[in-house]
Amino acid sequence: MPHIPLPEHLPGIRGAMAFRPETAKPLNELVEVLLRGPSTLSPGERELIATYVSSLNDCYYCQTIHGAIAAANLNDDEKLVERVKQDFLHADISDKLKALLVIAGKVQKGGKNVTPKDVAHARQLGATDLEIHDTVLIAAAFCMYNRYVDGLGTTQPHDEAMYRDRGKRVARDGYVTVSKEYLAAHATR
Amino acid sequence: MPHIPLPEHLPGIRGAMAFRPETAKPLNELVEVLLRGPSTLSPGERELIATYVSSLNDCYYCQTIHGAIAAANLNDDEKLVERVKQDFLHADISDKLKALLVIAGKVQKGGKNVTPKDVAHARQLGATDLEIHDTVLIAAAFCMYNRYVDGLGTTQPHDEAMYRDRGKRVARDGYVTVSKEYLAAHATR
Repeated sequence: MPHIPLPEHLPGIRGAMAFRPETAKPLNELVEVLLRGPSTLSPGERELIATYVSSLNDCYYCQTIHGAIAAANLNDDEKLVERVKQDFLHADISDKLKALLVIAGKVQKGGKNVTPKDVAHARQLGATDLEIHDTVLIAAAFCMYNRYVDGLGTTQPHDEAMYRDRGKRVARDGYVTVSKEYLAAHATR
Repeated sequence: MPHIPLPEHLPGIRGAMAFRPETAKPLNELVEVLLRGPSTLSPGERELIATYVSSLNDCYYCQTIHGAIAAANLNDDEKLVERVKQDFLHADISDKLKALLVIAGKVQKGGKNVTPKDVAHARQLGATDLEIHDTVLIAAAFCMYNRYVDGLGTTQPHDEAMYRDRGKRVARDGYVTVSKEYLAAHATR
């Protein structure tokens, strides 16, 4: 049960956002520009970083929904998403993305863990300054989203079809569009 | 030295924001609504929560600048800010704020650490649902800002007067206004 009265039919961050639309707006804009805005990293690659960090933070809702969005962006390859969470070094992804996931994993533990060597390694494999910046901020941002979702004790149903359907929808329409609809329909204050 | 070429004359998050104005916008809007928007928690109380979480995350820049903004909002009481960081249970703040700082400290370690008992305790001392929500989100958000600032290896000068001056300015004019000025002057991409 959520720690505060969130609408229980809205799982995870959706209930929290309906409770507080004023903060939902920048939270949605941030994830939209970070994961779907113009970038040399594909939406699928960025969703994999978000999913991986959410799995390190053990946030069921976030790792499942972002895993579903990642899969929807990657030819529905749910096995690849699972492999990245379990053992990304041996997943079928680029060496550059592996180096970025190393950086993301260090940010999850705390920003000071990132070393010049980690960054040089990513750069050698083709990562740009902007890709390194965005990787750090995606990892940091999901340390926020994960804590927000779990810290309020949000409802997190185990319903694969629900996450898969919504993942496809967000992959198609984006965070801001999809969330505007439910905020309009469900704002509680 | 920063891990990517940030403008070195802009310390902490300011350099990162000048590097990436697209993400700076929602990051600034989030902190503005959370720490300065309409709330039954005063700006000083909210800045104390941000400062405390930043000290737990050992982020020098964030704990110093938000400590300075907190002090500017609390009759320049820098000793109170220091006391909250070191031993808030014995600081001269309300019991309600102490209960909210307990929740914030648990969110910093991971959202699942917050218990129904922590929340019931805060509520008994007068905390509202919205105050509990905002405390969780402030703590979560500073787990992001701190990792962003340290994960990029930003410049963090030890210059008390600089933080004090800027703290007064942000307390007076707000995050969005102050940051718009330097973004306009210093955008690097």
